[in-house]
Amino acid sequence: MRIDIISVLPEMLEGFVNTSILARAQKKGLVEIYLHNLRDYTTDKHRRVDDYPYGGFAGMVIQCQPIDDCIAALQKERNYDEIIFTTPDGEQFDQPMANELSLKKNIIILCGHYKGVDYRIREHLITKEISIGDYVLTGGEIAAAAMSDAIVRLIPGVLSDEQSALSDSFQDNLLAAPVYTRPADYKGWKVPEILLSGHEQKIKEWELAQSLERTKRLRPDLLE
Amino acid sequence: MRIDIISVLPEMLEGFVNTSILARAQKKGLVEIYLHNLRDYTTDKHRRVDDYPYGGFAGMVIQCQPIDDCIAALQKERNYDEIIFTTPDGEQFDQPMANELSLKKNIIILCGHYKGVDYRIREHLITKEISIGDYVLTGGEIAAAAMSDAIVRLIPGVLSDEQSALSDSFQDNLLAAPVYTRPADYKGWKVPEILLSGHEQKIKEWELAQSLERTKRLRPDLLE
Repeated sequence: MRIDIISVLPEMLEGFVNTSILARAQKKGLVEIYLHNLRDYTTDKHRRVDDYPYGGFAGMVIQCQPIDDCIAALQKERNYDEIIFTTPDGEQFDQPMANELSLKKNIIILCGHYKGVDYRIREHLITKEISIGDYVLTGGEIAAAAMSDAIVRLIPGVLSDEQSALSDSFQDNLLAAPVYTRPADYKGWKVPEILLSGHEQKIKEWELAQSLERTKRLRPDLLE
Repeated sequence: MRIDIISVLPEMLEGFVNTSILARAQKKGLVEIYLHNLRDYTTDKHRRVDDYPYGGFAGMVIQCQPIDDCIAALQKERNYDEIIFTTPDGEQFDQPMANELSLKKNIIILCGHYKGVDYRIREHLITKEISIGDYVLTGGEIAAAAMSDAIVRLIPGVLSDEQSALSDSFQDNLLAAPVYTRPADYKGWKVPEILLSGHEQKIKEWELAQSLERTKRLRPDLLE
């Protein structure tokens, strides 16, 4: 899988791409991630990529030209399954969408910044608008990071133990059961005895009961 | 405002803290952000902070001791309004929560990693569990970044133009209207004529109508 991220602030993502699960997935040859600085594509002599919005509104808007040229340059090299724009009014990103996107070959993620991008880009070039949640971020960079992380960790071989992803919250529409590790007694705080029993079947039953109870209490909507 | 972020992978957040709106807010003296490496607090001679989960499950779990000691060290210096844990089964982070948290003085954000943290930490030390969305990330670092960004940009003076945050999506339960910038005609893609009219009142009416129409179509739940 290949992910091309287009941003006006790629340095915000460098540490993330080079230290996280994305770094390990790249080292294993399972994914390629490229950061593109939008400023490298502007024809403006001062390397500006934004301008004031029409209508006298506040904030700055990223112009069509650099985005159009950057996407065109990438598309000249290969076909893309999706050209994603990160925006709070997009479709809500969730685990099924992460699963679906993890099966794609090439995707572009365009990060909004400032007040957003010229709406004509969204109408004419973007194939999928995604929001990572009902809150406003300064830019789409964190959204791109969240999506890339959620997607890449689902690619077989990326996590050292595949079980690890399969037993996550949401994969079966249930929240995960509580987890505990050594010591069994920390300052009087104790691990549930069942987990120390070595009784595999009972532990599995306990885990499922805990998952169900937590989901009913905290996220009944997931059970509907 | 002061935000202390506790993580096993603080280097993942360094670029973000030093290049984004968080960097600007810190330079202006409006916020202080500190990254704490959990490994600095372990009493394990190999600097390990995690261990296998009880019950024979997959993955690794962060132990009580380093987290407990790190939080205790911070609390010795000052009072914290909230000790937040980022987890997919937490309360959903949204714009009202960002508004509320932006009024706090000191908060701690503990990032989960691997399979999570020992559940006893959540029971005894955490005051608020927050999820940034219904998807699983490798660690809580991106969630901490998202929350910090959404919160900090609401602090007065952080954004260069305060209007810019007030007119964002969600602040009035409406999605933002489309934005456009120069040129008015890009390869035949045209800006709506009303925005070029200079008629302030009509432009405001158009903006509100667009916001309403987009919200009704894309996120009718926000209007309920």
